[in-house]
Amino acid sequence: MIKIFELKNIISIKDLNKSDIDYIIDEASKLEDIAKSREISEELKGKILGLMFFEPSTRTKMSFETSMKRLSGECIGFENTGSSSVSKGESIADTAKMFEGYCDALVIRHEMEGVSKFISDIVDVPVINAGDGAGQHPTQTLLDLYTIKKEIGHIDNIKIALIGDLKYGRTVHSLANALTLYDNVELYFVSPDKLKMPQEILHDLDKAGMSYTETSNISDVIDKVNVLYVTRIQKERFADIDDYLEIKGAYIINKKMLEGKDLIVMHPLPRIDEIDGDVDDTKYNKYFTQAANAVPVRMAILKTLIKNNPK
Amino acid sequence: MIKIFELKNIISIKDLNKSDIDYIIDEASKLEDIAKSREISEELKGKILGLMFFEPSTRTKMSFETSMKRLSGECIGFENTGSSSVSKGESIADTAKMFEGYCDALVIRHEMEGVSKFISDIVDVPVINAGDGAGQHPTQTLLDLYTIKKEIGHIDNIKIALIGDLKYGRTVHSLANALTLYDNVELYFVSPDKLKMPQEILHDLDKAGMSYTETSNISDVIDKVNVLYVTRIQKERFADIDDYLEIKGAYIINKKMLEGKDLIVMHPLPRIDEIDGDVDDTKYNKYFTQAANAVPVRMAILKTLIKNNPK
Amino acid sequence: MIKIFELKNIISIKDLNKSDIDYIIDEASKLEDIAKSREISEELKGKILGLMFFEPSTRTKMSFETSMKRLSGECIGFENTGSSSVSKGESIADTAKMFEGYCDALVIRHEMEGVSKFISDIVDVPVINAGDGAGQHPTQTLLDLYTIKKEIGHIDNIKIALIGDLKYGRTVHSLANALTLYDNVELYFVSPDKLKMPQEILHDLDKAGMSYTETSNISDVIDKVNVLYVTRIQKERFADIDDYLEIKGAYIINKKMLEGKDLIVMHPLPRIDEIDGDVDDTKYNKYFTQAANAVPVRMAILKTLIKNNPK
Repeated sequence: MIKIFELKNIISIKDLNKSDIDYIIDEASKLEDIAKSREISEELKGKILGLMFFEPSTRTKMSFETSMKRLSGECIGFENTGSSSVSKGESIADTAKMFEGYCDALVIRHEMEGVSKFISDIVDVPVINAGDGAGQHPTQTLLDLYTIKKEIGHIDNIKIALIGDLKYGRTVHSLANALTLYDNVELYFVSPDKLKMPQEILHDLDKAGMSYTETSNISDVIDKVNVLYVTRIQKERFADIDDYLEIKGAYIINKKMLEGKDLIVMHPLPRIDEIDGDVDDTKYNKYFTQAANAVPVRMAILKTLIKNNPK
Repeated sequence: MIKIFELKNIISIKDLNKSDIDYIIDEASKLEDIAKSREISEELKGKILGLMFFEPSTRTKMSFETSMKRLSGECIGFENTGSSSVSKGESIADTAKMFEGYCDALVIRHEMEGVSKFISDIVDVPVINAGDGAGQHPTQTLLDLYTIKKEIGHIDNIKIALIGDLKYGRTVHSLANALTLYDNVELYFVSPDKLKMPQEILHDLDKAGMSYTETSNISDVIDKVNVLYVTRIQKERFADIDDYLEIKGAYIINKKMLEGKDLIVMHPLPRIDEIDGDVDDTKYNKYFTQAANAVPVRMAILKTLIKNNPK
Repeated sequence: MIKIFELKNIISIKDLNKSDIDYIIDEASKLEDIAKSREISEELKGKILGLMFFEPSTRTKMSFETSMKRLSGECIGFENTGSSSVSKGESIADTAKMFEGYCDALVIRHEMEGVSKFISDIVDVPVINAGDGAGQHPTQTLLDLYTIKKEIGHIDNIKIALIGDLKYGRTVHSLANALTLYDNVELYFVSPDKLKMPQEILHDLDKAGMSYTETSNISDVIDKVNVLYVTRIQKERFADIDDYLEIKGAYIINKKMLEGKDLIVMHPLPRIDEIDGDVDDTKYNKYFTQAANAVPVRMAILKTLIKNNPK
């Protein structure tokens, strides 16, 4: 059976079915040698990607730029309208129409949920959501899944703990949603009481017939899982700094906790201190690999969308 | 007859004769498929364009970048010295000499009239003026003419209304000047009394033997023209906000006004509200096409100047 | 004998021996036609350079970008963390690890001495120091040596005056250190008393068995040298503005002083007024050539390090 990928835009991870995700993972895997510059590709030569970053996210922007350039494509764009004349009084719609005139695909980052969707409705070129407020960041989830597949060998049957701020964390919401597409996944949610996974996500999981376990102790799950997916707990979530300091301390992963375990540690980065530096030089550390995986995965997405949707 | 283009720099639209403009329009027309990435070109491979934007103009900068990159060329540069170490205490001349050492052509944007000319006198590489204060922005005029030619089929014999702030609007001054080169053009100037076309431009038109009509009512001209060229009226021009609001209201183009007319609407963008959103989905809307035309026109200019003037 | 270059990183000019410097000068010389875009090269096609500029230095950044792009390579990066989300709370180590995942080599600029060395110890890709505080800026020294070799014909046996702020000037320290590798170099240090060459550098020269002459008058040396290497005296070094103005006046080079002499004037740029504009159009002016030489020299460095150290 020939696999196909029919989506024109990637706005929410929920728009993708299992076959779509498999397609991107397969493609990314084939692009690894180009991502590492062991091979040269001209796949997107002459194509231009428009990066519309209404809020700064240098890491995400640079990984899209790297992905485009490894395929001989090019980028234009802006980051943070503060330092940009684009959109000074101009509507987002007009700015997007201008970019459409110049580019073969657009990547949107905005602090407001729904902006990527809005733009995808008014332009003819493919649109990729690179994070819209509390909403979605689907390419992050795709690179998370790619990392799990590559490191563990499979996504079905994995046992994964999502740790830290599960209430506000966009990446853990999307990842939980995506995992409902896979068989026999064991989900553990580890967070302080006030930062538990929102009812809305739990409802999605229930609907998908998926079971999950909630706890506030890492020690409850550390012997049961293949993957510790760690996220940052932000100081801003706490009225009382002492509450924050106490809670934060309970969610730091270090080398000693991991010894003898058969698992990997992931993190969407940047980390502050929720993973101790002594984990960096161990086999458990897959967070830097995960960060580097952004390139083949975003290459696969750019190649697929741009090739499938010529101007 | 083989057409040639002998200019090394594009500083003012007044430096170009009709044959020069025709040359750029012809070239741009041939580059359309590359501009839309339906075809790949390596015309400027290995060449580097220097973008010296002493004041921000992200739109103009991005269209030059797109144009260079569609031809496999590359760009370096800065936008807004505020965020740049270039020129910190250094003379503009020294900054330009440095860029000359790195680049094959320079694009200059500066708030002060004459800076592009000054730089073109001290460097050996071609210089393009991308707007100098109240002065010139010749590549905008070239893309305006290209749009008229492409949409109406000819520039001779057109009937065009320039609308809005005719006193301070750099683009309408340059366009009026350029149209003196064409035969039998009917010019209508539509503006509030205090924002009328300056005497200096009217004098240029008189000298060229060109007739024009001034009015403050769009309704006087809307049945007579092929092109409505709309520009923004800036609040800053008015001491009294009520004066501004009253006047502004009289210069807004909407769908209802256009119905049944045989004309196109152009605008150099960004617009604020001088063209109602309900025009966007009509056949009258050529302002987004006009914006996209920046790419083939600037490609034609870059290709011609860089190829004709190797280092 | 086949020359080789075995260094993986360029952190300090002191890490290079004479044969290393010769290698880079030879390579740069061969790359001149590509640097001037008379020839096209795909030497670094598909490769990506990461520019981590924690403090702004647009001139240095642009010359690295130009160098990479002339070889068909590409760049990503940031300048000045103020306008960047990179490193917001994230450690420099983590930021560098992320860049390592995306890039084939890194260029580091930081206000703190030692940062480039630190990063080179934790990443596997080559690292180039583009200036770390009062420390080193080795690629500047390499382009200075390249300019001397190209303009004078040799580095051994040159007679060179280093003029201006010798106390704080990073470039004159590195250049003096590098010149200890050459035979029979005559060194003249010309500075105000309070801005004399530091004991530490003088000690290095003594150790290398090199003689040098210190003076505060340009007139003492101007008949004796092949090269006047001029640097800026910064106002900030003086408590009393009158002291500054008096001293500054004594260290300005003008055309009249140079007439009839057989020498060249160099300057790392930017200059403020320490070289009068009337020197620009004379044969003595080699400072703009020196600035342009940044490109072939940095091309040679990038090509050598990236080719020798594939991912």
